[in-house]
Amino acid sequence: MAAARQKVVIVGAGFGGLAAAHALAKTDADVTLIDRRNHHLFQPLLYQVATAGLAPTQIASPIRMILRRHRNLHIELDEVSGVDLEGRCVLLGGRRIAYDQLILATGATHAYFGRDDWAAHAPGLKSLEDALGLRRRVLLALESAELDMDPAARDRLLTFVVVGGGPTGVELAGAIAELTRRALACDFRRIRGQRARILLIDGGPRVLSTFCPSLSAYAKAALEKLGVELMLGRPVGHCDEGGVTVGDLRIDAANVIWAAGVQASPAGRWLEAETDRAGRVFVEKDLTLPGRSEVFLVGDCASVRDGTGAAVPGVAPAAKQAGAYAAAVIAARMAGRPAPGPFRYRNLGSLATIGRQAAVADLGRIKLTGFPAWLFWCAAHVWFLIGFRNRLQVVLDWVWSYLTFERGARLVFEAVTRGREPAIRVASPSAEARIA
Amino acid sequence: MAAARQKVVIVGAGFGGLAAAHALAKTDADVTLIDRRNHHLFQPLLYQVATAGLAPTQIASPIRMILRRHRNLHIELDEVSGVDLEGRCVLLGGRRIAYDQLILATGATHAYFGRDDWAAHAPGLKSLEDALGLRRRVLLALESAELDMDPAARDRLLTFVVVGGGPTGVELAGAIAELTRRALACDFRRIRGQRARILLIDGGPRVLSTFCPSLSAYAKAALEKLGVELMLGRPVGHCDEGGVTVGDLRIDAANVIWAAGVQASPAGRWLEAETDRAGRVFVEKDLTLPGRSEVFLVGDCASVRDGTGAAVPGVAPAAKQAGAYAAAVIAARMAGRPAPGPFRYRNLGSLATIGRQAAVADLGRIKLTGFPAWLFWCAAHVWFLIGFRNRLQVVLDWVWSYLTFERGARLVFEAVTRGREPAIRVASPSAEARIA
Repeated sequence: MAAARQKVVIVGAGFGGLAAAHALAKTDADVTLIDRRNHHLFQPLLYQVATAGLAPTQIASPIRMILRRHRNLHIELDEVSGVDLEGRCVLLGGRRIAYDQLILATGATHAYFGRDDWAAHAPGLKSLEDALGLRRRVLLALESAELDMDPAARDRLLTFVVVGGGPTGVELAGAIAELTRRALACDFRRIRGQRARILLIDGGPRVLSTFCPSLSAYAKAALEKLGVELMLGRPVGHCDEGGVTVGDLRIDAANVIWAAGVQASPAGRWLEAETDRAGRVFVEKDLTLPGRSEVFLVGDCASVRDGTGAAVPGVAPAAKQAGAYAAAVIAARMAGRPAPGPFRYRNLGSLATIGRQAAVADLGRIKLTGFPAWLFWCAAHVWFLIGFRNRLQVVLDWVWSYLTFERGARLVFEAVTRGREPAIRVASPSAEARIA
Repeated sequence: MAAARQKVVIVGAGFGGLAAAHALAKTDADVTLIDRRNHHLFQPLLYQVATAGLAPTQIASPIRMILRRHRNLHIELDEVSGVDLEGRCVLLGGRRIAYDQLILATGATHAYFGRDDWAAHAPGLKSLEDALGLRRRVLLALESAELDMDPAARDRLLTFVVVGGGPTGVELAGAIAELTRRALACDFRRIRGQRARILLIDGGPRVLSTFCPSLSAYAKAALEKLGVELMLGRPVGHCDEGGVTVGDLRIDAANVIWAAGVQASPAGRWLEAETDRAGRVFVEKDLTLPGRSEVFLVGDCASVRDGTGAAVPGVAPAAKQAGAYAAAVIAARMAGRPAPGPFRYRNLGSLATIGRQAAVADLGRIKLTGFPAWLFWCAAHVWFLIGFRNRLQVVLDWVWSYLTFERGARLVFEAVTRGREPAIRVASPSAEARIA
């Protein structure tokens, strides 16, 4: 029954794909891991790169480095273009890679609810490039405000809108509030002492809607203490180069950041499978594609109800558990053992942080807020960061920022060239006379 | 005589501009520092970013952070387009900033000896973007070699040519040799155990030609021990997408890196001044523009013979000394004191490193090689890195790499997309059958 040296192909080296590769290292499967990036990204800390708190190398590690010890593993840096289910091959441009078992862990990207034209004005946050682009925009807005003599233009440059009140939106709004407050207090001359305006907009009635209401209320109060304005219960109606519209209200803002809506990666299209509204593929209780027991979908690209019938959330721990589960099913098949029971998601709790010292932790029966929650958040994130070196560096950085309020990663790489950046234009005509 | 609150404008926040800003902080001058980037770059370690040893944040600091304490200083992130010498104004697009005293510290870029079309095939190393682009190319060449089934294409992908045998070229060649040796020994499957070919080409008879001949000989031997092939006494005759030609010899290489030739920034053009062949402006003995005693040129944009008549080299210590000197002249003028004597360059010695444990130090009478030189090199570079935090991080990183041979910054940011990168194409047609 058991076939030796099964060819297992994993697509995606996010939390799900890595967990599967690690679990399969103990088997004698011949594993190929394909990703179109050479690094694994610790997405929960991506907002810190976007707000200049951490550097990209601190939250990303080369995949080859992470998996170096696994001798049954082969890594390919390439982009998958489709799956041939009949021929049991993954397609990469003109190339094909055959599999006996396939694990798709291709993740998700942000979605604009059918308004893809908003993407240019309200960038989201899924990759390191997104984070570096956002960092650049935020930092250049402050620089442009320093140069601009027109009060209205300056106000627009100092207005930051975050759309979406989930953990990412809350964390981004808090971090931007702290970054701008510190920068405006110390680093500029003309705009020194001014206040940046930070708005957090969500169509729902409360932030952190997946947490319990008391934690949402705490998060709201903590954000307001940081100076963030919350606009809840009203969705964004329009979004363009100059700002956003919420109901009848127009908000002029140079920086609009999208932290709402998730869209699964194209795995559903490759498989021509049935998906939910967010593009996630409906899977069986053992995470396989209906009718194709050799194809697994794990993490954000799958729509899963676990053994208890509850929907599994799109978070890192769920993806890790799913990756390890799929590997366990494959290992059982190879060994001729009975497969494990249906996938069960073990909820380890939810965490979100709101700037220095404030956070919320929803650990089932235990709910934490404030400094204890913040310490717990720090410990949990450092613990799960890949690689001892990154952990140590991140701890040092946080200790340093905590003591000094300093944000060391405030770099804008490209030279500023006039006119290249329509969204953040430098200096109005009236500026000339005054400066000269 | 002495005019209070003189307006001093500094263009460029490299070593020269920063030194001038620091020195002027002690005066009551009204100082404006203009740079088109928001960070100061520690260029001597740029090759380590290009070879994945250090991350950008570790060798760059925001200018506003470095100069935060200087209350008489105003920083503008903008690009200078010219100087109006008669009107005593710096031009920035349509904007003008008036000055009483002007310090131009605009640095240099790489030059292709009139063959600017080579720039696309043989990128140089002056900015963080250059370094990140180079890192991307080098890392993707290894990834493409792993995927390519054609031996000739694979050899081409594993051939790295460094043009220029100065400190940058020597350091790059050594670092690439170590990076590839380590990666090919551990991280790949198909190309595991293969050797990358690294060539260092220079038209002159020896590497490190500004050092004494015994140190050049040591550097040559150290490079050869690392597996670098040296081609000396023969300049590169041609350079294209596929490689380089040296005399009659054609070398197929996916990566050609330019570490030869320096061209001063456009300060000479702005001033319509007399320059040397490299575009550096000839200056008086007090670093001022002939006939314009209120305009100073410091660092790589100036061609200086110091008080002793010797040419001042284009290195960081010389730029720092020149920046501080120009500030001292301005301070003396403001105070009505006699100006200091002509600029004298104090040679602190020359350093270059060749991988782990090998380096050369030319400190006048004292010459060091090997491990002592390498320790001295580490200490000197860490000491001069800006900011305590960066120093500590770099030390930790080096200790870590030294113990583990690991290079943590091996990140390629953008996703790999087929066909976008003509120089590093993935997979030949013959690859398909074999992999499938």
